[in-house]
Amino acid sequence: MTYDLIILGGGPAGYNAAERAAGAGMKTLVIEERALGGVCLNEGCIPTKTLLYSAKVYDHAKHGEKYGVKTEGATIDHSFVIDRKDRVVKMLTGGVAAALRGLGVEVVNASGVINGRGPEGLSVEAGGKEYVGKRLLICTGSEASVPPIPGLRESVASGFGMTNREILAMREIPKRLAVIGGGVIGLEMASYFNSVGSEVTVIEMLDHIGGPTDADIAAILLKNYAARGVKFLLGARVTSVGTGRVNYLPAGGGAEASVPCDRVLISIGRRARTAGIGLESVGVLTERGAVVTNGRGQTNVAGIWAAGDVNGRSMLAHTAYREGEAAVRDMLGQKDEVDYDAIPSVIYTNPEVASVGLTAAAAKARGIDAVEKKVTMKMSGRYVAENEGGDGILKLVAGREHGNILGIHMIGNYASEIIYGCAIIVEREMRAKDLQKFVFPHPTVGEVIREAAFSI
Amino acid sequence: MTYDLIILGGGPAGYNAAERAAGAGMKTLVIEERALGGVCLNEGCIPTKTLLYSAKVYDHAKHGEKYGVKTEGATIDHSFVIDRKDRVVKMLTGGVAAALRGLGVEVVNASGVINGRGPEGLSVEAGGKEYVGKRLLICTGSEASVPPIPGLRESVASGFGMTNREILAMREIPKRLAVIGGGVIGLEMASYFNSVGSEVTVIEMLDHIGGPTDADIAAILLKNYAARGVKFLLGARVTSVGTGRVNYLPAGGGAEASVPCDRVLISIGRRARTAGIGLESVGVLTERGAVVTNGRGQTNVAGIWAAGDVNGRSMLAHTAYREGEAAVRDMLGQKDEVDYDAIPSVIYTNPEVASVGLTAAAAKARGIDAVEKKVTMKMSGRYVAENEGGDGILKLVAGREHGNILGIHMIGNYASEIIYGCAIIVEREMRAKDLQKFVFPHPTVGEVIREAAFSI
Repeated sequence: MTYDLIILGGGPAGYNAAERAAGAGMKTLVIEERALGGVCLNEGCIPTKTLLYSAKVYDHAKHGEKYGVKTEGATIDHSFVIDRKDRVVKMLTGGVAAALRGLGVEVVNASGVINGRGPEGLSVEAGGKEYVGKRLLICTGSEASVPPIPGLRESVASGFGMTNREILAMREIPKRLAVIGGGVIGLEMASYFNSVGSEVTVIEMLDHIGGPTDADIAAILLKNYAARGVKFLLGARVTSVGTGRVNYLPAGGGAEASVPCDRVLISIGRRARTAGIGLESVGVLTERGAVVTNGRGQTNVAGIWAAGDVNGRSMLAHTAYREGEAAVRDMLGQKDEVDYDAIPSVIYTNPEVASVGLTAAAAKARGIDAVEKKVTMKMSGRYVAENEGGDGILKLVAGREHGNILGIHMIGNYASEIIYGCAIIVEREMRAKDLQKFVFPHPTVGEVIREAAFSI
Repeated sequence: MTYDLIILGGGPAGYNAAERAAGAGMKTLVIEERALGGVCLNEGCIPTKTLLYSAKVYDHAKHGEKYGVKTEGATIDHSFVIDRKDRVVKMLTGGVAAALRGLGVEVVNASGVINGRGPEGLSVEAGGKEYVGKRLLICTGSEASVPPIPGLRESVASGFGMTNREILAMREIPKRLAVIGGGVIGLEMASYFNSVGSEVTVIEMLDHIGGPTDADIAAILLKNYAARGVKFLLGARVTSVGTGRVNYLPAGGGAEASVPCDRVLISIGRRARTAGIGLESVGVLTERGAVVTNGRGQTNVAGIWAAGDVNGRSMLAHTAYREGEAAVRDMLGQKDEVDYDAIPSVIYTNPEVASVGLTAAAAKARGIDAVEKKVTMKMSGRYVAENEGGDGILKLVAGREHGNILGIHMIGNYASEIIYGCAIIVEREMRAKDLQKFVFPHPTVGEVIREAAFSI
């Protein structure tokens, strides 16, 4: 039998594309060697958010006195939190499996390798069997980078070092946790373990945390966590990982120093999973280890699309969803193209950070004449009511001439749930004047967007 | 001296309009007999949200075990919460005063009465002085309705009965609280006092709570609060308020019964404040006690606009902001008109309820051929992670032929901060197909909007 579509990988790009393709009548097969849901559902977005919510409840229980609430002896049961995380993951992956089954999507639980093109179509081997599809969608995702730093790979083998996968299964709370890499994953895990009582040290090679996050916002985030006791070593280059310690060269060129710790999280970055899946058998082009795609998900080979982390473009689950859908629409001859400038991103720390579009720095780098307006979140009555001592801000970046919104960036709670509307604003190229005429419910934190729009 | 603009009332409509008018160069005077900020800042939106956030923190402290958090002896200090509320209000009203001062707006703290039109303009008396303005904006707001039910007014005089004003200043937690009226204010206060330990009974004349809220959503909200011990008497007509009790006729016509209680909240509704402000001196038209306005805030009298609750249209602070701005734009000869079909509304209960645009029932009543899609919030991984046992839903109402979004309605936490984006969607008359192409960050509760869009 020949499938209309074979999808290699059942993560966000793959399972969602399978639903859309099957919904449109395509006979669809998903090949996934691990669990449906991919990194996101099993060892990424969802597990971390489950942990972080428990940490937020714990923080409320511990620090409610600012709001008139007192408790004695608040404790968090980390092992219970991990069990609950497993239940949440099981429920959601079960939901994905049921949805695929309901739409008639076949799922093969095995490692798939592309094996050239025959007269019937593209061939994929999985679990000792051959499957043939008229079309192929590559969604093999990404994996944590473990660069060749002396001792790093050995540390993972011994259990001292962990990637996102291992840390989310860990049952104990390490007394001292070192986090290599102050990007999204590193910061979210630093946040959780800081809340539950670990001494956390974040070691970051750059002079700031949060990767491409707006510099002022990254600085506010750092200040908040520093105040809670997280140590940050910026501009620090890890030289080796030894027994019970991470060695590094500090910023400014001092002598090698070390962070003694009980566990190390390796959150340096992620790289596309393109090795060993037979790309060479069909000549799919890669660049820096990622499959090259256009905005419709097309690869250089007719009949083969790719979506999600494997293309190395944005490495976010929601981008993966969107790319998978755009690819399926392209297969169906429908016009669609992903707008990579309107993809929101969130850091689920406390306070939360969220962003969409260009920062002022990014606009400048592109040669765009832009203005930036910064407003304090304290312009929102709700923010004041709910954030005693809060220092959140929102930035609006807009074209100088027309006031067209190029980017919105914020730090402050609810940012995660507010940012989707900003993505709509950026995607639709709305102007500050347009925002002034929308009615924002009062009192909400989101009202600061409107306030900023009046200051442009 | 003649002002370009005299604003009667310094609540959300008035103070915000004053900022916009002064920002545009108009010499502006605000006359306010009570505190700047109006009901919203002083005894409405902001105070209630301050209380409700403390209740949320307290709920987390008491019921964290579902998330792995245990506490002993959690207590809430209601008097501290009220003090904190007063501090928050003071900070925000201080901010309004400072903003007006900074823009050169004059503020007179006195009761203002319109006193006809002279050769220089419209005359307003306040604090024994006369002020003359080329234009007048009426923003006198609204007050709690206290209908002529036997004993009701007397109860307010004795302190047994309270409106929103008195209950927000009350220092003790009543053992038994009766709430007359299950609308937004009644439900929010019922929520707070339920959390802090009162036995709460809500007496509602209609057969449902939440006023115009979607019926399924109102039913879910009721179920949640009933499970927490709030008693609801629906279809119950209050006949009199006696000593320590509220008497009522139950639904279905049984004999008069009574709710014994220590305090009574009167939250039956609000009515425009149009009496005693001299409207008759200039012939401003009212209807059912509210000033008649069009979408630009114009009254029937040239040079006189009205905005906010006084027009009786939507009775929401954010509508008041928008109306005040539209009126100022109209004064400046700029084109603007309030779209009353894209005004969001929120009930800040736990779970939160939020809504914008038409419900299916409202669409039907207007003769619009619409479809309604209901999705469970459990489609959101974040919702599952953060809401153990949650039963939230989202409804999308769209035109049957084109899929244009007419309304979005939801119950589930973060709804309050999500709904502004839905207001943009409704205001811009977007289609379900448009929503499919926006990128919603994952994992967020807001993603259910996108899921619903795929089901249309």
